[in-house]
Amino acid sequence: MDTNELADKGLKLRKEMVGAAAVEQRIASMGEFGEPLQHIINAYAYGDIWSRPGLSLGVKSLAMIAMMAAANRPAELRVHLKGALKNGCTPEEIREVLLLVALYCGIPAANEAHRAAIEVLKDEGKA
Amino acid sequence: MDTNELADKGLKLRKEMVGAAAVEQRIASMGEFGEPLQHIINAYAYGDIWSRPGLSLGVKSLAMIAMMAAANRPAELRVHLKGALKNGCTPEEIREVLLLVALYCGIPAANEAHRAAIEVLKDEGKA
Amino acid sequence: MDTNELADKGLKLRKEMVGAAAVEQRIASMGEFGEPLQHIINAYAYGDIWSRPGLSLGVKSLAMIAMMAAANRPAELRVHLKGALKNGCTPEEIREVLLLVALYCGIPAANEAHRAAIEVLKDEGKA
Amino acid sequence: MDTNELADKGLKLRKEMVGAAAVEQRIASMGEFGEPLQHIINAYAYGDIWSRPGLSLGVKSLAMIAMMAAANRPAELRVHLKGALKNGCTPEEIREVLLLVALYCGIPAANEAHRAAIEVLKDEGKA
Amino acid sequence: MDTNELADKGLKLRKEMVGAAAVEQRIASMGEFGEPLQHIINAYAYGDIWSRPGLSLGVKSLAMIAMMAAANRPAELRVHLKGALKNGCTPEEIREVLLLVALYCGIPAANEAHRAAIEVLKDEGKA
Amino acid sequence: MDTNELADKGLKLRKEMVGAAAVEQRIASMGEFGEPLQHIINAYAYGDIWSRPGLSLGVKSLAMIAMMAAANRPAELRVHLKGALKNGCTPEEIREVLLLVALYCGIPAANEAHRAAIEVLKDEGKA
Repeated sequence: MDTNELADKGLKLRKEMVGAAAVEQRIASMGEFGEPLQHIINAYAYGDIWSRPGLSLGVKSLAMIAMMAAANRPAELRVHLKGALKNGCTPEEIREVLLLVALYCGIPAANEAHRAAIEVLKDEGKA
Repeated sequence: MDTNELADKGLKLRKEMVGAAAVEQRIASMGEFGEPLQHIINAYAYGDIWSRPGLSLGVKSLAMIAMMAAANRPAELRVHLKGALKNGCTPEEIREVLLLVALYCGIPAANEAHRAAIEVLKDEGKA
Repeated sequence: MDTNELADKGLKLRKEMVGAAAVEQRIASMGEFGEPLQHIINAYAYGDIWSRPGLSLGVKSLAMIAMMAAANRPAELRVHLKGALKNGCTPEEIREVLLLVALYCGIPAANEAHRAAIEVLKDEGKA
Repeated sequence: MDTNELADKGLKLRKEMVGAAAVEQRIASMGEFGEPLQHIINAYAYGDIWSRPGLSLGVKSLAMIAMMAAANRPAELRVHLKGALKNGCTPEEIREVLLLVALYCGIPAANEAHRAAIEVLKDEGKA
Repeated sequence: MDTNELADKGLKLRKEMVGAAAVEQRIASMGEFGEPLQHIINAYAYGDIWSRPGLSLGVKSLAMIAMMAAANRPAELRVHLKGALKNGCTPEEIREVLLLVALYCGIPAANEAHRAAIEVLKDEGKA
Repeated sequence: MDTNELADKGLKLRKEMVGAAAVEQRIASMGEFGEPLQHIINAYAYGDIWSRPGLSLGVKSLAMIAMMAAANRPAELRVHLKGALKNGCTPEEIREVLLLVALYCGIPAANEAHRAAIEVLKDEGKA
């Protein structure tokens, strides 16, 4: 597939998962400087990897939450917590992942991730 | 529940997931020095967190794989790759998680995790 | 010991080290979603590990400061800087640990940890 | 060379790269508590390593940007983004480094670094 | 551009930088399981990012060395140390980057990276 | 103090803590390429920071063990485990630090550190 088509396809899925307004605001805030990175996100992340079959979007989201909590990336974690709810994950499923984080990446990683999750659940009316 | 009962319950689940011989060998290699850490693993990790309902063991294993790849812990990743297969995950599901690792934690993390996965799949006759 | 007794014992030590009001505020902010994580903190961290003999609370606090600075966890670092002062550590002892951080984890880790320490020392009237 | 002379020499280069006012403000904010760390920064980092011949200041700055993005240190990254501009790097060169970050340390590291770069470019009138 | 063309273009550059035999051996060792990851490496990393103008391959290699040392990825560091030599970097330039690593990511990161560099320099007859 | 005197003073303390033969072997293995890094280690780490009063060498060693376990640096951890024993720390004190690692940096970090500690204790006849 042409990489521009891949980017268009990816941007569509990204907006479904993260919300169109949030995605457009983020792309605008990055301006011309950020265009190549946005291409990576749209084409390679969402157009290719997220679009692959073989694992449901919900389970991918739970794996992403585990990964972002382990990698100490709370801003990105918030994005994927919202994505997880859009992809049908329940607050309980999210919490079970964060309890594995506590034991396997340590209490501070789980504390930070709990704060992010509680914020996102409030924002989305699921607290 | 008494913490010793919790440890017994956890050790049982741990042996089911990782294999009784591997667990016993690891406990023996840690000797008396390692007893408190083994208690943490048996009682708090397996007896409490892994035993909680709310998320299947297979999805927990996929989250663990994401987490260990992100945290640069290849020895522990191997343990949980074996656990994932025991918990019913397919090689394809494991690979989809590792492709998210490539995009969100970088190619070197995915390379290391692929090497671990290929080794474990060979050992378990699933390559 | 029963895990609920362990949690009660741990919560008592935690309040002594971190301050009762701060602990209660944190538990409340995490709500029902955070209950299993609070159990991990109270029972397993404070009730078990922090309560073990074999190393003074002050030296444990200095090790925690080293660990949180290395792990890039400034929010948790602040908690344990306060705990270190409660456990009798002096500002000079804390600084010596942070200078090891500078050489062995790099200047950015030490800068971040110095900022946290100076804030906590001011809050506690020890600057 | 005497370590105090090394510190004087380093402080001069540091002020050229980061701006005299910013350096003085930072030193003042760290007070007496921060003096040994400031000595490490002035004498060992700027007086010794940054002053060594063998690689231009501009290329050193690009390597620093790569390193701080990889190490998840956005505050220090901002300092070295400013230094890179002072050392003659262009926004395009900085961006090429951040695109390598995206592929080799993951999209979240590149997102965070892009946000820092866009802020610094605006502050310096280069956006 | 079509993503398969991008992968072909990237594989060509990758072989120039890392050596054709080493690349083929690595691709073979990953088998069918590794095909999607190899596509990411060939098309997105080498075909897109490494192929962009705006920064010389040599400076990109020095940034990669900084990044892999900071990220604690010695296997990938070795690959990019070889690439740096192919891209015209001198041992002295590589060392200057590793000395920045010592101050900004800590002595252990620099020790590990020095060991890797000395090995690669010996292998390539440049020690 | 002149930096060469600082390096001589530091090398003396380093040999006392790590063993003269081990230090000489390491310096030799790094050759001319490694001289500036060895100067950093001798002068800045051992000559300056480790030589400062204000915290005993034993407590500094325990903080170093915490830091190296958190930072995922097992090779450097082994060096400082040996140093801790030379500085009078007991196996029990070392273990208490590693149990804090389990709770605050996660079980995999503690597993890796336990393996290193058990090896070093055997080598030093203290298992």
